[in-house]
Amino acid sequence: MSQPNSPTPRTRVVREAHRGVYDRETAYRILDEGFLCHVGFSIDGQPFVIPTLYGRKDDQLFVHGSAASRMLKQMRESLPVCVTVTLVDGFVLARSIFNQSMNYRSVVVLGKATLVDDPAQKLEALHLLSEHIIPGRWDDVRQPNERELKQTSVLRLPIEEFSSKVRAGGAIDDEEDYSFPTWAGVLPLQMKPGEPIADERLLEGQQVPKYVRDYSRNQPIKN
Amino acid sequence: MSQPNSPTPRTRVVREAHRGVYDRETAYRILDEGFLCHVGFSIDGQPFVIPTLYGRKDDQLFVHGSAASRMLKQMRESLPVCVTVTLVDGFVLARSIFNQSMNYRSVVVLGKATLVDDPAQKLEALHLLSEHIIPGRWDDVRQPNERELKQTSVLRLPIEEFSSKVRAGGAIDDEEDYSFPTWAGVLPLQMKPGEPIADERLLEGQQVPKYVRDYSRNQPIKN
Repeated sequence: MSQPNSPTPRTRVVREAHRGVYDRETAYRILDEGFLCHVGFSIDGQPFVIPTLYGRKDDQLFVHGSAASRMLKQMRESLPVCVTVTLVDGFVLARSIFNQSMNYRSVVVLGKATLVDDPAQKLEALHLLSEHIIPGRWDDVRQPNERELKQTSVLRLPIEEFSSKVRAGGAIDDEEDYSFPTWAGVLPLQMKPGEPIADERLLEGQQVPKYVRDYSRNQPIKN
Repeated sequence: MSQPNSPTPRTRVVREAHRGVYDRETAYRILDEGFLCHVGFSIDGQPFVIPTLYGRKDDQLFVHGSAASRMLKQMRESLPVCVTVTLVDGFVLARSIFNQSMNYRSVVVLGKATLVDDPAQKLEALHLLSEHIIPGRWDDVRQPNERELKQTSVLRLPIEEFSSKVRAGGAIDDEEDYSFPTWAGVLPLQMKPGEPIADERLLEGQQVPKYVRDYSRNQPIKN
């Protein structure tokens, strides 16, 4: 799985080049821990960045949405897009403002999306998206009917031209700043689930499922 | 502060138009709770989306970075950019896959950035950025020197053309699905700080500051 990937001039990390990572395994780990991406596309020279959910299988990303969405309309046109996923891991508090930093992991994927048109493939992609976002949920809910499938567009973006960027660890201060009298260290940040809130019209006897109660993004990597 | 803002054809929410919100107060609340934005810009027709930290003051957003950064180089060229901030509030578990959803709040700002060139204004913007991200930190660290200021670029983006999108509340199922035997409700999600990790070279007697120990993004809106 971890075949090497050469960065293109477009995906090579320019700023803080030592934080650029180009192997698939690193990218897949980040993509599988995340669920929200930001999709960039241009209309008449104006870039737009829209948040949306995604799923991954092998070397493909999937996004879905209403056939009426501006983003999906653009993506369907096979215009170049950029999909970025960012996981925030913490603030790095250094002894100087200049060396303050953030621990994070991000992946940028460039490419052109294609519509998943075939009904069986579309259903499979929706299943995959659902399992990426809330593993275990799909089998517990009413499946999509034909009308709903028609109202939903699913797009596939190959993970071909991509790069990751990772900043981890503690503060890196200038040597002369280590005597500066202040606290320094890392404040970890993590997206955490709270207490599930039951629907007002819940049927009697319905318990919070295990996949909700134990929800965590620290999933094993899929492949 | 809450003067009305008319959406332009570019910022009007197309998909799920009822979730579009166009007043400044809503946008400012979201922008002040967040600290990470995704900046979209195009180079030779290819959109790029890059995560970065930001700060807000009045009707201006500030981002900063190395003068060497590809993103800041593009932004300095006064080309159109898009800055998007997304806060994830939870997963909405409906009784059908089609009605699964996510609670979130997002702001999209379109426009052209300008360089903050004047040294005093640049220092003020960096102060503002620092206070936006970790309120209280600025006064506890070594201030930037001239060399560091020169290495840092700060850009200002007016909050003129913008829109917010908000999804909140429980599942909205089709009437006939309410008898479907499954758990439904909301799994709240929140970015939460963990236990601060002290730097290995911490000076003796340095305690975790209150602004780190009690860190929370639920700040009062600034103005």
